Amino acid sequence: MMIAGERRYGRLSNGVFEPAPVGTDPWDLLDESATGSTQFEDAVPVDSATKLEVPVPVGAVRDFITFEQHTAGSLRAVSGTSEVPQVWHEQPAFYFTNPHGLTGTGYDIPIPPGSERFDFELEVAAVIGKDGYNLSVEEAWEHIAGFTIFNDWSARDLQSNEMKVGLGPAKGKDTATTVGPAVVTLDELTDKRQGDSFDLAMEVRVNDKVIGTDSLANMAWSFAELLAYASRGTWVRRGDVIGSGTCGGGCLAEFWGWYGEGAIPPVQGGDTVTMTVEKLGTISNTVKAGATAHPVPSARRREWSQPQQP
Amino acid sequence: MMIAGERRYGRLSNGVFEPAPVGTDPWDLLDESATGSTQFEDAVPVDSATKLEVPVPVGAVRDFITFEQHTAGSLRAVSGTSEVPQVWHEQPAFYFTNPHGLTGTGYDIPIPPGSERFDFELEVAAVIGKDGYNLSVEEAWEHIAGFTIFNDWSARDLQSNEMKVGLGPAKGKDTATTVGPAVVTLDELTDKRQGDSFDLAMEVRVNDKVIGTDSLANMAWSFAELLAYASRGTWVRRGDVIGSGTCGGGCLAEFWGWYGEGAIPPVQGGDTVTMTVEKLGTISNTVKAGATAHPVPSARRREWSQPQQP
Repeated sequence: MMIAGERRYGRLSNGVFEPAPVGTDPWDLLDESATGSTQFEDAVPVDSATKLEVPVPVGAVRDFITFEQHTAGSLRAVSGTSEVPQVWHEQPAFYFTNPHGLTGTGYDIPIPPGSERFDFELEVAAVIGKDGYNLSVEEAWEHIAGFTIFNDWSARDLQSNEMKVGLGPAKGKDTATTVGPAVVTLDELTDKRQGDSFDLAMEVRVNDKVIGTDSLANMAWSFAELLAYASRGTWVRRGDVIGSGTCGGGCLAEFWGWYGEGAIPPVQGGDTVTMTVEKLGTISNTVKAGATAHPVPSARRREWSQPQQP
Repeated sequence: MMIAGERRYGRLSNGVFEPAPVGTDPWDLLDESATGSTQFEDAVPVDSATKLEVPVPVGAVRDFITFEQHTAGSLRAVSGTSEVPQVWHEQPAFYFTNPHGLTGTGYDIPIPPGSERFDFELEVAAVIGKDGYNLSVEEAWEHIAGFTIFNDWSARDLQSNEMKVGLGPAKGKDTATTVGPAVVTLDELTDKRQGDSFDLAMEVRVNDKVIGTDSLANMAWSFAELLAYASRGTWVRRGDVIGSGTCGGGCLAEFWGWYGEGAIPPVQGGDTVTMTVEKLGTISNTVKAGATAHPVPSARRREWSQPQQP
């Protein structure tokens, strides 16, 4: 969080933030969460309106799609069918998104320029604590520093249009992703752990209205499986963030899929979106008008022809 | 490049590398490329086999698709039609890829686990020199530190399979992207500049065989237009890299699209892929066998049902 203009890491619990000494490495803080050797400073009260920074320095952001209910409903919104493609079942799908869009709880979220169908996505993310290459599922658990709440803000109109080219999403998702309020280490979740699943209740509200609820245990893969897959043949590094994908009922688009585009309005300037995940806390952001888009022309026509076979 | 185990930035020209003093900030080096106040050390000869590191510290990597010939041919490989979707013409499409896959010239490139259709993509990238938010096209030019060659290595079998879910590409592209050999500032390209285009000859070879050639002037958008679009409503920061997309004839998949999958073999262990762009230099990498994939199970079935309308 920010104290007197200075960014400070620390410990968040039971409605208070206890800053660690200036210069404390947040990764050390996570590593030693069980040892308690850090001398924390005086507690500062926080509530859902308090601005807190993204809890760790973030590298690359990968976002998966692992809840079948969301996959079926949101595909229905896009393509009119709730048939989940066979390949979705065979391997966990993901895309990379913009690390510079990460935002903490309490901050206002601008509507992406040109969007009239702005939405949110309730997810949990694993924060990676050490570098790994081509990890097995067993090895992968040791690389997860903890979990945090992840709101993948989504401009559905921009997203569905750009994805007709077959790439992305990119502009549909790159303005903001809320991460926070803290990284909760796995030792804090023991009583909610069932094998490799975590039965954490998830809920999203728009203003005072509950939109959807689910359990993190409904992921079709464990976070270790997602990390093993992400690291297959490449690096996943400390500070990387891996989103679970949206839980069932965790976004408006799923309801647009089931009940039509008029079923529930998109979020508007002034709306507050609040997400609570059991044991992980609450993130809350208010939406505001965004920037105006600068014009970018359509494609220039260039001469081209089918090339000779090499 | 690496000298006696130490990473050093410096100046590359005419087959020699001149190291700047230890600790020199590469961004200062790019800013002052015209002033010549740095005291460079003794020149070291380099050739296409010399290992050079990625020339700047990289943040986020965005890769566009701006050459119509490539778009038509590679879509034909995937979907059987060379009809480019209308939205491709309306706005520049891109996706985010793995910044941890970036590799310099001279390094061996592992084949992604499980891929039997490994390919390359000849591109030029703009390297962003200062942070920008919601930039106009005019403002965007001032944020481009220079250009570099960009080889977006691609596992076509993994890519076409994962993209059936409608996200990405991700695993099809995340093992390696070669960037280098240097960042060339725009003042070095004046005689090849025509308005906002750069008529730089591009060529890719596999071993000694020329596969394709094009000109960078055939991009359907300028790099400033791509950057303005990328920054619309969000941050593009120093160290971010923006790929042009593959030029015409710049990958094998385009030829598979025009002439069938047997038209030319995928790259194999031992093949050397060499890319030369006028004024920007040459990057060259040899492909080797990759890691073995650790198993990740298919989706667990979870109970779910259509939710009540909120």
